[in-house]
Amino acid sequence: MGSLDTNALQVQVGDDEFRPLDPDDVRACLHKAVDFVADYLQSVESLPVLPDVQPGYLRKLLNPSPPATSAPFDVAMKELRAAVVPGTTHWASPNFFAFFPATNSAAAIAGELVASAMNTVGFTWQAAPAATELEALALDWLAQLLRLPPDFINNNNTTPRGGSGGGVILGTTSEAMLVTLVAARDAALRRSSSSGVAGMARLTVYASDQTHSTFLKACRLAGFDPVNVRTVPTGAETEYALDTARLRDAMRDDVDAGLVPTYVCATLGTTSTNAVDPIGAIADVAGSFDAWVHVDAAYAGSACICPEFRHHLNGVERVDSISMSPHKWLLTCLDCTCLWVRNKSQLTSSLETNPEYLKNDVSQSGDVTDLKDMQVGIGHRFRGLKLWMVMRTYGATKLQQHIRSDIAMAKMFEDWVRADDRFEVIVPRKFALICFRIIIRPRHGAMKKVEEDADVANQELMARLNKTGKMYVAHTVVSGKFVLRFAVGSSMQEERHVRSAWELIQKTAGEILRDEP
Amino acid sequence: MGSLDTNALQVQVGDDEFRPLDPDDVRACLHKAVDFVADYLQSVESLPVLPDVQPGYLRKLLNPSPPATSAPFDVAMKELRAAVVPGTTHWASPNFFAFFPATNSAAAIAGELVASAMNTVGFTWQAAPAATELEALALDWLAQLLRLPPDFINNNNTTPRGGSGGGVILGTTSEAMLVTLVAARDAALRRSSSSGVAGMARLTVYASDQTHSTFLKACRLAGFDPVNVRTVPTGAETEYALDTARLRDAMRDDVDAGLVPTYVCATLGTTSTNAVDPIGAIADVAGSFDAWVHVDAAYAGSACICPEFRHHLNGVERVDSISMSPHKWLLTCLDCTCLWVRNKSQLTSSLETNPEYLKNDVSQSGDVTDLKDMQVGIGHRFRGLKLWMVMRTYGATKLQQHIRSDIAMAKMFEDWVRADDRFEVIVPRKFALICFRIIIRPRHGAMKKVEEDADVANQELMARLNKTGKMYVAHTVVSGKFVLRFAVGSSMQEERHVRSAWELIQKTAGEILRDEP
Repeated sequence: MGSLDTNALQVQVGDDEFRPLDPDDVRACLHKAVDFVADYLQSVESLPVLPDVQPGYLRKLLNPSPPATSAPFDVAMKELRAAVVPGTTHWASPNFFAFFPATNSAAAIAGELVASAMNTVGFTWQAAPAATELEALALDWLAQLLRLPPDFINNNNTTPRGGSGGGVILGTTSEAMLVTLVAARDAALRRSSSSGVAGMARLTVYASDQTHSTFLKACRLAGFDPVNVRTVPTGAETEYALDTARLRDAMRDDVDAGLVPTYVCATLGTTSTNAVDPIGAIADVAGSFDAWVHVDAAYAGSACICPEFRHHLNGVERVDSISMSPHKWLLTCLDCTCLWVRNKSQLTSSLETNPEYLKNDVSQSGDVTDLKDMQVGIGHRFRGLKLWMVMRTYGATKLQQHIRSDIAMAKMFEDWVRADDRFEVIVPRKFALICFRIIIRPRHGAMKKVEEDADVANQELMARLNKTGKMYVAHTVVSGKFVLRFAVGSSMQEERHVRSAWELIQKTAGEILRDEP
Repeated sequence: MGSLDTNALQVQVGDDEFRPLDPDDVRACLHKAVDFVADYLQSVESLPVLPDVQPGYLRKLLNPSPPATSAPFDVAMKELRAAVVPGTTHWASPNFFAFFPATNSAAAIAGELVASAMNTVGFTWQAAPAATELEALALDWLAQLLRLPPDFINNNNTTPRGGSGGGVILGTTSEAMLVTLVAARDAALRRSSSSGVAGMARLTVYASDQTHSTFLKACRLAGFDPVNVRTVPTGAETEYALDTARLRDAMRDDVDAGLVPTYVCATLGTTSTNAVDPIGAIADVAGSFDAWVHVDAAYAGSACICPEFRHHLNGVERVDSISMSPHKWLLTCLDCTCLWVRNKSQLTSSLETNPEYLKNDVSQSGDVTDLKDMQVGIGHRFRGLKLWMVMRTYGATKLQQHIRSDIAMAKMFEDWVRADDRFEVIVPRKFALICFRIIIRPRHGAMKKVEEDADVANQELMARLNKTGKMYVAHTVVSGKFVLRFAVGSSMQEERHVRSAWELIQKTAGEILRDEP
C-alpha cells in the first residue's frame, strides 16, 4: 500500500507493555472509582445543587491540550474532584426538584458497570445472545409490572421476526418517537399508494400542544413537513389533556383536504404539568383513520406499576406502541427508554439492514429479531442488564413502595401549598409533580398588571431559591402564566428535604412579597 | 382529580424504608460488582468466545415473570454468573477477532461508572455545566490528537451558538450520519428554494458501495428517497475506495436531470475491507455541487492519532463533518461516537428545540451551545467523562503505542498468511484488519467451480473455527468472494493469542483441504 511504514513498529513487550484492560489494574482503578462514587453520594446533600460557575469555567482549570504522556489513574480522579464536581448540577442531590428526577439505584449503577466492562455489541443475536435475550426478558418483566396487553410481550422463548409484538431498549423517548414515526410514515405511504417520498407532503401527525418538544424534532428528523404537524390546543378545562373531539375534527379536516393522517402521539404525564391524555379514546379516534397511535409515558408510566395508577393506561390494548423511561422514575440510571410495539415487523421493515458482514445462520433462520433492526443505528450496548438488575433486586414491592413514597411526599407538599394562601396550585397534582406559584392579589392595577406582577414575582422566587444552592427548582408556562415545577423523587430524597425546601420557599416568598412595592 | 387514592399511602420510615441510593449500600454493591468484573476479565480468555446456546436459552434459566419481593444484591450477581455469562459472546476475550474489536480500558470503565452514578442529564449547559464543558474539552483534545483543522475545535472558553465549529458525542455513527444528513437536507431545501418536504424527492446522496449499510438506513430515516441514494460501484483497482471520477459523473448526471446533490459520505476504513476513500478529492468534487461532505472514520480514525497514518485525513479541512468512534479502537467502552462539524449552526438550526421548561438565562444568552441541539433527542448522558479519562490517564504516547501494537500484530498475521501458499490476502492490509481466505486451485473443474469451492471451503473454515470456542472470526464478501475478516485489537490481546489463532486456522484449513474431494 505504501501507506504504512511499519519498520519502526514493534510489539512492545516487558515493563513497557501497555495493558489497558489488565484485570488487576481494572480492579484497582474501579475500587477507587467506587469509593469516589460512594463518597460523592455521601456528600452531595451538602453541595450547592446548582453550581456557581460561568460558561467557560472548566477551561480555566484543566489543560486545553491533551497530555502527551500517561499519568497515574489518581490524577484523573483528583481533577474530577477539583474541577468537575464543583461545576456539576447535582441531579443526585436530595435537594434537586427540577425537571423530572433522574432516579438511580445501587443495582442500576452496578448493572451499568458490568455492562460497560463486558462491553458486548448487541447488533445481532449471535454477537450477544445473553444481552439480546436479557433485554427481551427485562422488557417482558416490566410489561408485566405495567400489565401491558400480551400483544406487547416478546414470545415465550424466542423472538421471531414477523408479526408478533415485543420491545427494545433505546436511549431516549426521542428515539422511540423517531423509529415509530418512521414505521408509521412508511406504512402510510404504502397504504396511500403515494409515489414514494413525494407522498410525504400529504402525511399529517397529531399531538396536543403539551406534548414534549422533542416530538416536533422527531417529526422533522423523519421528514414530515412541519406545517403538517397538528398541535391540538388544550386548556384548563381538560387539565391540559388532549381533547379527542378536537383531534377528530383535525383528522377529518385533513382527510377532507386530501391529506393522510399518519400518527398520533398521546402523552401519559406531560412534562409541563403531568397532563394525561385519554389513551383509549385517542386510539378509538385514530383507529377510524388508520393512524398509528404512540403513547409517550416517559415519566408517569412508572407509576402504572401500582394498581391504583394503572387505569391511566386503559386503552393501551388498542395502541400501536408505547414507550416509558425507567431512567426517569424507575431507579435506572441514564439512559434507558423502553419501547414496546404491537407488531415488530412494522419497525423492522423500516429499520432492517442486512449487510454481508453481519449475516449469520441464526439471524437468517428468522428465529430471532436482531436488535439492530429495532433502532436508529446498528451498535447496541448491553442495555437490558441494569433494568433487569433493578427489577431482580428490588422486586415489584419495593418499586411500588418507591413510587408511593414519592407520591406521598408530593401530596404532603401540595397540601402545604394549598394551606398557604399566598400560593396557588395551578393544576391538580396527579403524580409527584406540583405546579404552583405565588399569587399577587389585585391592589392598585388592573388584572393584566397583576398577571405581570405574578410572573415577575415567581421568576424572582425561582431565581432566589436556585441561587441559594439549597435547592433547584425549574419552571414552565401554563396558559401564559409563569409557574414553578416542584418535582419530588430524587433518589436520596426524604421527607426532611421536601420540608426544608418548602420552608425556604415560604421564607423567600415572604421576602419577595414584602419587597413588593 | 379522583385518580389518586392516597389514603393508604404513607411515607414509610424506619427499617422498612427503601433507600435505593444509600451510599453505604452503593459502596457495598459496587465493590462486589468490581470484583465480578475483574474476575470476569481474568477468566474470559478461557471461556468459549462464541457460546454454545440456542435462541431462547435464557428463558429456561431465569424466571419468566418479575419477582414480587426484593432479593439480596448477591442473587442478581449469582444469576448473572450462572445464566448470562454462559450465553455471552465474549467481546472482551483476547480470542475475539470478529467485526471490529470493541476496545476498552480501566479508565473508560471507571469513567462510565462515575458518569452513571452522578447521573447528570446534560440537555442544557445549566443542567450540567461540567458535563457540557468536559465533553467539549474531550472533543477538542481528540481533535488535537487527530490534528483536525481549527474549524472543528470548540472555542477556547465558551461554545457560542452561531457560526463556529465544534462537536458532540453521540451513541453511534448512525446518529452522526442521521443528524448531518438532516442538516444537509434542510440546507439543500433552503438552497434550492424547494417547496418544503415535496422538494425532498429531488435530493440525492452519494457513497461508495462499500459504505456501511447503516448509511442507507440513516438516509431512509431522514426521508431521502431510496432511489436517490447513489452507491458508486468500487473494485479491486481502487482497493474498494470511492472513485471520484465516477462520483463526479453521478453528481453531474443528477444535476442534469434536475436533481439536487445534497450529501456525500466518505469512509476512512470501510467495515468490509478497510478501504479508505480519498477525502480531499471527494471534497473537491462535492464542493463544486455545494453538497455536504461527511467523513465516517468510525474505526480507522483512531489510527490517525499516529503521525504515520494522519495522511489518510488529508483534505479533512475541506469537509463539513467527520465522525469517529473511540468505542471501536480508542479504548473507550460502548457507546462513544464523536461528531465534529465545521458549522454548529447548521446542526442546531435543524435540531434545536426551545420549550419553556428548559429555558434559562445562560441558554438564552447565546454564550453556550446546549447539547440537546446537536443530537437526535433531548436527554444526554455524561458522555465526555470516560473519553476524557482515557486521554487524561493514558496520554497521547500510550494511545499511539496501543494503535501501533495492534497494527504490528496485524502485520505479523498478514505476513504469516502471505507466507502460506494455501491462503491469499484479498486486499492489502491498511490497519489491523486482514481479509484473507483459503485458495482452491483449479483441478478438475472450470474457474467457476473453483470459486464456488473456495466459498464453501472458507465458509467451512469459519464455521469450524468458531465452533471450537477458541476464537471468533467473521466474514465479508468482496467482489463476490466469501472472505474471512481477521480483526486484531481486542484490548487484552497479545501476540500469543494471534499466534494461537493462526495455528488453529492453519490446522483447520489443512483438515478442510484434505477433506476436499
